Amino acid sequence: MTECDVGPFPDANGFSEAVTLDEADPLSGFRERYHVADPDLIYLDGNSLGRLPRAVLPRLQALVVDEWGNGLIRSWNERWWNLQVAIGDRLAPLIGASPGEVLISDSTSVNLYKLAMAALGITESRRRIVTDDANFPTDLYVLRGVAEAMGGSLDVVATKGSGSPMADLEAVLDESSALLSLSSTEFKSGYTHDIGEMTALAHRVGTPVLWDLSHSAGVMPVELDASGADMAVGCTYKYLNGGPGAPAFLYVRQDLQESLASPIPGWWGHAEPFAFDLDYRPADGIRKFHTGTMPILSLVAMEAGISDVTEAGIDRIRAKSVSLTKFFIRQWEEHLAPLGFSLASPLDPERRGSHVSLSHSEAWPIDRALIEIGMVIPDFRAPDNLRFGLAPLYNTHLEVHTAVQRIRSIVTTGAHARFAGEKLTVT
Amino acid sequence: MTECDVGPFPDANGFSEAVTLDEADPLSGFRERYHVADPDLIYLDGNSLGRLPRAVLPRLQALVVDEWGNGLIRSWNERWWNLQVAIGDRLAPLIGASPGEVLISDSTSVNLYKLAMAALGITESRRRIVTDDANFPTDLYVLRGVAEAMGGSLDVVATKGSGSPMADLEAVLDESSALLSLSSTEFKSGYTHDIGEMTALAHRVGTPVLWDLSHSAGVMPVELDASGADMAVGCTYKYLNGGPGAPAFLYVRQDLQESLASPIPGWWGHAEPFAFDLDYRPADGIRKFHTGTMPILSLVAMEAGISDVTEAGIDRIRAKSVSLTKFFIRQWEEHLAPLGFSLASPLDPERRGSHVSLSHSEAWPIDRALIEIGMVIPDFRAPDNLRFGLAPLYNTHLEVHTAVQRIRSIVTTGAHARFAGEKLTVT
Repeated sequence: MTECDVGPFPDANGFSEAVTLDEADPLSGFRERYHVADPDLIYLDGNSLGRLPRAVLPRLQALVVDEWGNGLIRSWNERWWNLQVAIGDRLAPLIGASPGEVLISDSTSVNLYKLAMAALGITESRRRIVTDDANFPTDLYVLRGVAEAMGGSLDVVATKGSGSPMADLEAVLDESSALLSLSSTEFKSGYTHDIGEMTALAHRVGTPVLWDLSHSAGVMPVELDASGADMAVGCTYKYLNGGPGAPAFLYVRQDLQESLASPIPGWWGHAEPFAFDLDYRPADGIRKFHTGTMPILSLVAMEAGISDVTEAGIDRIRAKSVSLTKFFIRQWEEHLAPLGFSLASPLDPERRGSHVSLSHSEAWPIDRALIEIGMVIPDFRAPDNLRFGLAPLYNTHLEVHTAVQRIRSIVTTGAHARFAGEKLTVT
Repeated sequence: MTECDVGPFPDANGFSEAVTLDEADPLSGFRERYHVADPDLIYLDGNSLGRLPRAVLPRLQALVVDEWGNGLIRSWNERWWNLQVAIGDRLAPLIGASPGEVLISDSTSVNLYKLAMAALGITESRRRIVTDDANFPTDLYVLRGVAEAMGGSLDVVATKGSGSPMADLEAVLDESSALLSLSSTEFKSGYTHDIGEMTALAHRVGTPVLWDLSHSAGVMPVELDASGADMAVGCTYKYLNGGPGAPAFLYVRQDLQESLASPIPGWWGHAEPFAFDLDYRPADGIRKFHTGTMPILSLVAMEAGISDVTEAGIDRIRAKSVSLTKFFIRQWEEHLAPLGFSLASPLDPERRGSHVSLSHSEAWPIDRALIEIGMVIPDFRAPDNLRFGLAPLYNTHLEVHTAVQRIRSIVTTGAHARFAGEKLTVT
């Protein structure tokens, strides 16, 4: 960083508090399990791609050399065949599910499609799918595709994200609603629904609910079974640190599994996969939602992240997540609100996930400057949103404090101005 | 191997011929690019899971440490975002396609579903899908799922695999056929269709054709563009040596791309993915068939295999494949036919892929004995089929000769008898 200090910033308000909070952090030991090549780089995008667990590389080396190279096809029997179910069972307690209810499978989008199609298969004449405009855009595209394939319609409720979506959705849900599908934590605002209350609302009119847990899984308790949720999907490359594009998961409540049929049946989900029957007979339980062969390298790489979250404990992770976002918001209020940054996430920690969004009229050049010269990596969501993801397993309160000061330095020195013309890209 | 000799078997007929053929093999240098821990192990299952290219491990190490660990989210921009299209373009010439016609995407089954649904979207009132009973069972399951979702039917023609499927299918195809979908090379018999003639047959009644190239890609030329084929899918973990469960590919002929719509639209296939629009607008060209985020570790691991096939040249690979299967059949005739093995693959090399299937009433225990004590790995397909996959980049004629002698030793000594009661498993 050339235009402003790299930090830490011991003279700015909040420094001592950050140090104190970090000293009391029961999860502080987990950071060293992650690959941190440059400790000056403050990575606040674990809500998009989690950091690399150091256990991944040796595990992948063994997989590639011993299992693929030496074991060859025999490793399907000895190591790989049951991985999707076994890893699903290990993920289950993190989202309040029971063994046999979670399967690692395909991508989040494909899983959403499979379960939405399956749900519409049991709702008889109902063909209206309800969602809201704070849902992830791909979810909207997929749900619209499902509605069209089934001769129905998609009702997108405008909820303004961090408002009170319960009331907005209640006004729309009725006996013609075939499915309610929402992001449990919204990708832009970080608003997190009360899954139990929302599910009860939908069940009152007989509508099943399909949750996208991508921004919740691994960073907060999700009580799927206890809330009576019907179905869920989610990704594993955010707070579960599963690696770029790691396979996704799907959940179907035990007592629903028998009545739902997968629209894309494959031999992996056949009752007797090695009989190679001409006719499909679904396997019992969650296995029937299998489709084709899974990418084993990416599947195996996700195990380390799930182990870490399990060991740290989802309640302790949530407690630290709330502490980090609260501290971020206090720091925003003092140091960034005067510079034109508005809070675009809920103030109530109960309704907030693990990222904090700030809006600013110059959000895009500020994002670019933070990455290029500030050594802070947030991400940008059009048109004016900066997302700061706080990952309890490796982020610290001191990183929050330092990041806020670097943002401040960039904006007050105008260092972001030269990025104003840059073309929008990923992050 | 304890009950019989490990080999080579210089006193058995065929030994000198094998040595001579290997000495003249222009591709013999490629074997050393593959991980071969135990040269006594004869791996004849590259048609199920190809061997590990030695280039994979260093590439994965760089990917994990440099790109995921150090690059973090920035690697999406700098390295990963375009991989599906770029690798598709490198695969294209191996299957007779042009740049912009091939995309790496999901699994073979999901791709088959996407393209079959897309095809039925443009065939108006036609809702009959035609296939044959030699197609891979998952393809049948998926096609039946598509037919049901679209309110149609699946006609499965009984072709007996290695017979004359052209005539059988001609009798069924008519103006009510919405789609013909076949495996270009059949998974059991290894029968390989004439793609051009079959496509022409279907086009005469206005029926588009969707090919599954899983057992053809990387081991024989497939002239998709030249044959007028409409759509294709296939896997990359067989002769393309992409690794266990490596992502699959899909092909849509250039002039068809505009009229086909993906049934599972995702933000990766959006015209402006980072605008996060509430409405889907498909990207131009093959990109619109993208759905969700791809497993990058498994995606990157497939590059080495595609490079090897490209460098070796698909015509030289096919020439060696034909030489290997011909030699195997000559050795079968002399050494194995007298022991009750029947040839279950076509005699005509033009109609044969790169595996040879033998049927035998005790195929299952023979398969188990070969793997456990014979140090030969074929695979078994119920009820009585042994498949021997011959992968030109690393298999040799001497391996074929030795494997045949080991089969002979096992059967003549009765060493397989003790495996007769074993439960069927994968391979």
